[in-house]
Amino acid sequence: MSETGIHRVVIAGTGNVASRLGHAFKAASIQIIEVYGRNTAKAKALATSLGTSYVTEISAINVEADLYVLAVSDDAIAILSQMLPPLHGLVVHTSASAPLPVGSFSHTGVLYPLQTMLSHRNIEFSEVPLFIETNSDEQTKRLCSFAGQLSAKVIVADQLTRMRYHLAAVFASNFTNHLYSIAFELLAVNGLTPELLHPLILETALKAVEGNPEDSQTGPAIRGDVKTIKTHLDLLDKRPDYQQLYENFTGLIKNYYSKRNE
Amino acid sequence: MSETGIHRVVIAGTGNVASRLGHAFKAASIQIIEVYGRNTAKAKALATSLGTSYVTEISAINVEADLYVLAVSDDAIAILSQMLPPLHGLVVHTSASAPLPVGSFSHTGVLYPLQTMLSHRNIEFSEVPLFIETNSDEQTKRLCSFAGQLSAKVIVADQLTRMRYHLAAVFASNFTNHLYSIAFELLAVNGLTPELLHPLILETALKAVEGNPEDSQTGPAIRGDVKTIKTHLDLLDKRPDYQQLYENFTGLIKNYYSKRNE
Repeated sequence: MSETGIHRVVIAGTGNVASRLGHAFKAASIQIIEVYGRNTAKAKALATSLGTSYVTEISAINVEADLYVLAVSDDAIAILSQMLPPLHGLVVHTSASAPLPVGSFSHTGVLYPLQTMLSHRNIEFSEVPLFIETNSDEQTKRLCSFAGQLSAKVIVADQLTRMRYHLAAVFASNFTNHLYSIAFELLAVNGLTPELLHPLILETALKAVEGNPEDSQTGPAIRGDVKTIKTHLDLLDKRPDYQQLYENFTGLIKNYYSKRNE
Repeated sequence: MSETGIHRVVIAGTGNVASRLGHAFKAASIQIIEVYGRNTAKAKALATSLGTSYVTEISAINVEADLYVLAVSDDAIAILSQMLPPLHGLVVHTSASAPLPVGSFSHTGVLYPLQTMLSHRNIEFSEVPLFIETNSDEQTKRLCSFAGQLSAKVIVADQLTRMRYHLAAVFASNFTNHLYSIAFELLAVNGLTPELLHPLILETALKAVEGNPEDSQTGPAIRGDVKTIKTHLDLLDKRPDYQQLYENFTGLIKNYYSKRNE
């Protein structure tokens, strides 16, 4: 039992975020009374792994929960909110961008975790920054206290602030992950071993969090190594799209450090 | 004493790679008999930290080493090689791109570590892939055995193969690091806290090495979340250069996964 008055939780959604949040709730001994999902197989699978029951009709949702977590896509949030029956509990979504949910409920808010989540990957949830917002000071206090059971980093923040963090996260995580995919592809198409990049990928991430990334840039672009840059563009001659990305980055890195050294 | 016949090493260069290789040699109890560097202060500092002596004139270099490691820029390799006095030892450089060193010596080769190196950052050298090449089978065998004292991953590879790994490394490490810098900048200019991205950066790297990055792409581009993409481009309205990069990645990610799902 927490001191927040939030004891009974319903999770709406069966995707990556619903699954990881559900497991974080479970690990924190928070009572999940139900999972809602339109897809029976997915709703059943998540409910089973969380040791709870499920519904597939929004009209049948348990109306006695203290917290409803809408872990669904931005577009689905608005639709789902309108379809919910009248509720006394706090209704939150988990999106960076969407406005507060609106429907037949008076307590509304956001619980946005700044982390990349895959349903099958366990993560250290206590380190995940949780951004919260609600429509009243009282609910913010409750949600803050509730979120504190999940993570050591709870931040009260408005929609614009969440969106700014999300935008930064897209650069630091989504685009970065695609660079890994490109690097792996460039090796695999030549019969080479992508796994040899693993120590490099980990060290690059580690040095960024243990220091400051702008102080630890290496490579041909910051060195102004025109010969190597030319060689690399030649090696990419069958991939004009990757040549363009290479030139885009090389230009950005040069500008960044020439401005910095002015 | 190793079985390689390589007991006495001279390091030429005082930068990041020279320093990290030097410390890896020292940790493996390989005898560094001298550091060569044009800059007295840098040569002295590296020699002191490695517990050895230094010279600043190439003509004064110790001619009795078994191995000379030219850990200098690609352009400096050719110049330095030509300036070296006649040597019996094996002369290697540490570059991905440069051809074998040529000068008054008959044994020549390459020892290229696939890792981002900063002189002040300790790294787990036993996991760093070491790419080697020489101008004879006998020397390759010697260098292979020598490199095995430093790392568990020694790969015999020609210049083209090294360049392909280096190109992939530029995407996976140099460009990635600059994405971190951009993400940090986008938060800092708005008075927000870049450090909140740390768990995200580490998890993104970890999931790429523990799984396959193309299977773990998340974010608005792969979801086709047009509304969020539009919001992000609006937030970047003062940075057309970052808007362009955002659009470049969004297009690449869409194409990558539409092709994959065909």
